[in-house]
Amino acid sequence: MSLLVTGTIGIDTVETPYGQGDEVLGGSAAYFSFAAGLMVSPVRLVAVVGEDFPRRFIDLFKQGPIDTEGLEIRAGAKTFRWKAKYLDDMNERETLCTELNVIAEAAPTIPPKFRDSTFLFLANTHPALQRGFIGQLAKPKLIVCDTMNLWIETARDELLKTLAVVHGVLLNDSEARMLTGQNNLILAGRGILDFGPRFVVIKKGEHGAMLVTRDEVFVIPAFPSTNVKDPTGAGDSFGGGMMGYLASVDRTDMKALKTALAYGTCVASITIEDFSLDSLRAANRAAVDARLREFKATLSFE
Amino acid sequence: MSLLVTGTIGIDTVETPYGQGDEVLGGSAAYFSFAAGLMVSPVRLVAVVGEDFPRRFIDLFKQGPIDTEGLEIRAGAKTFRWKAKYLDDMNERETLCTELNVIAEAAPTIPPKFRDSTFLFLANTHPALQRGFIGQLAKPKLIVCDTMNLWIETARDELLKTLAVVHGVLLNDSEARMLTGQNNLILAGRGILDFGPRFVVIKKGEHGAMLVTRDEVFVIPAFPSTNVKDPTGAGDSFGGGMMGYLASVDRTDMKALKTALAYGTCVASITIEDFSLDSLRAANRAAVDARLREFKATLSFE
Repeated sequence: MSLLVTGTIGIDTVETPYGQGDEVLGGSAAYFSFAAGLMVSPVRLVAVVGEDFPRRFIDLFKQGPIDTEGLEIRAGAKTFRWKAKYLDDMNERETLCTELNVIAEAAPTIPPKFRDSTFLFLANTHPALQRGFIGQLAKPKLIVCDTMNLWIETARDELLKTLAVVHGVLLNDSEARMLTGQNNLILAGRGILDFGPRFVVIKKGEHGAMLVTRDEVFVIPAFPSTNVKDPTGAGDSFGGGMMGYLASVDRTDMKALKTALAYGTCVASITIEDFSLDSLRAANRAAVDARLREFKATLSFE
Repeated sequence: MSLLVTGTIGIDTVETPYGQGDEVLGGSAAYFSFAAGLMVSPVRLVAVVGEDFPRRFIDLFKQGPIDTEGLEIRAGAKTFRWKAKYLDDMNERETLCTELNVIAEAAPTIPPKFRDSTFLFLANTHPALQRGFIGQLAKPKLIVCDTMNLWIETARDELLKTLAVVHGVLLNDSEARMLTGQNNLILAGRGILDFGPRFVVIKKGEHGAMLVTRDEVFVIPAFPSTNVKDPTGAGDSFGGGMMGYLASVDRTDMKALKTALAYGTCVASITIEDFSLDSLRAANRAAVDARLREFKATLSFE
């Protein structure tokens, strides 16, 4: 098994009621790869940054350990930047600034040595680009994509073409509702299955996640935590924990998917305990397994 | 064991995207007692209605089987009436009309034959009246109260006095946040424990419920349902299923409480499948147990 992620790498400035992260490492592929790196290593990263991308961030990836062979540092380009502020209840945030920079240019390509990857996670980007990545892999075993409201609204046809060629979709509750026009999340999940994938994972933030297949529904709450400092990257970390687990056991069946959602939940709960990737980087597989045991205890009844 | 509930009985008119219930039986004590009646019988009901209360509704209670010895039909008074409309997503509703009528008059009293009740549920009413009911019981073993935003805002001191003398509190997430000023629900739950009770159950609607004690947190999602016709009474049915289970096993320990939350979840999921008390009345204990098995299957992972 080998897990490859494509997505954004950015420089984030984030303010929450608990503090501020200035010019910290962020982006969907960053959170995903550090999260997945707790489960399987090395994680293969495909992304593009500008020539302003700090050397120390590349060192962080290498310590991950994340294989940065697919991290293109593009001459003359600037790295994606994002600035946001969370409100008091941290369920809402205000985006203060988004500079796409290199993200708006040509997509990076998957280097030859990554083309045998069997597990592929397509973090949120234009759905046509997501399909382009799929075409570069020799024999993917499990392809899962994320998406966002922007593509649902502006590139729906392209998105439907992508959904027709992936095995799974990971998206949040409002996106699932927007994509299908169904308010009930199970019905929304089934509506997405009609577009092609065999499973849909709907993220509900502090309320957990739901897995919908043609035959089954599986629901899981979020890890009950009193220590949330910065929710940024929770969804991407969830994806990383989920895909990292699946790649680690080299399985794609329903039973493994359920366990994968539990791992995703636990890894995401670690991410939000500190700014940027700090708590993910300080964690290890034993810490994730300990959290999973604690999580199971908070869920069990007779 | 013997379970007594005090609360409102009303005549409801409810419109949802799936239909309308005109002048149907409703009120917190109605939903609670039919829900609890699936677990233990007879449920003892203490409430007051006006002389306009239809005879056929009293017959429904008797078929429950609900002991209506404590149902006062007050001469010269009118029954509580409530009219509401649910919006398309059914998470929001608009109250079109509330006529307190007899609810605004003197509270009913607990008849002598009910004074040996060991399990007491105080559905939402003024906290001073809730304490008045507690004082009428000889030797209650488990007292649980509900409350609402109105009392948190207008009768906080009285509410704190009531919280000091109950064992458990059942309230929704926005109320828990309002009562404590804590956004994090675990911290909100612990804040409420500081007022006196030994457990707090926080209802999160379609996102499930959380049980908080000094030493433990237990989380449970809602039953994943595609068949929701009328959400009215879901919270009171949850309380009925929960207290009904506890009374049926005559236990108040943490392990029983967790199972009780699961039963509350399943009973509430039955209530919302039809208008008024129709689906609760059509159900039985075997149907609840079957739903609990199905629910466990949607939650289990390895």
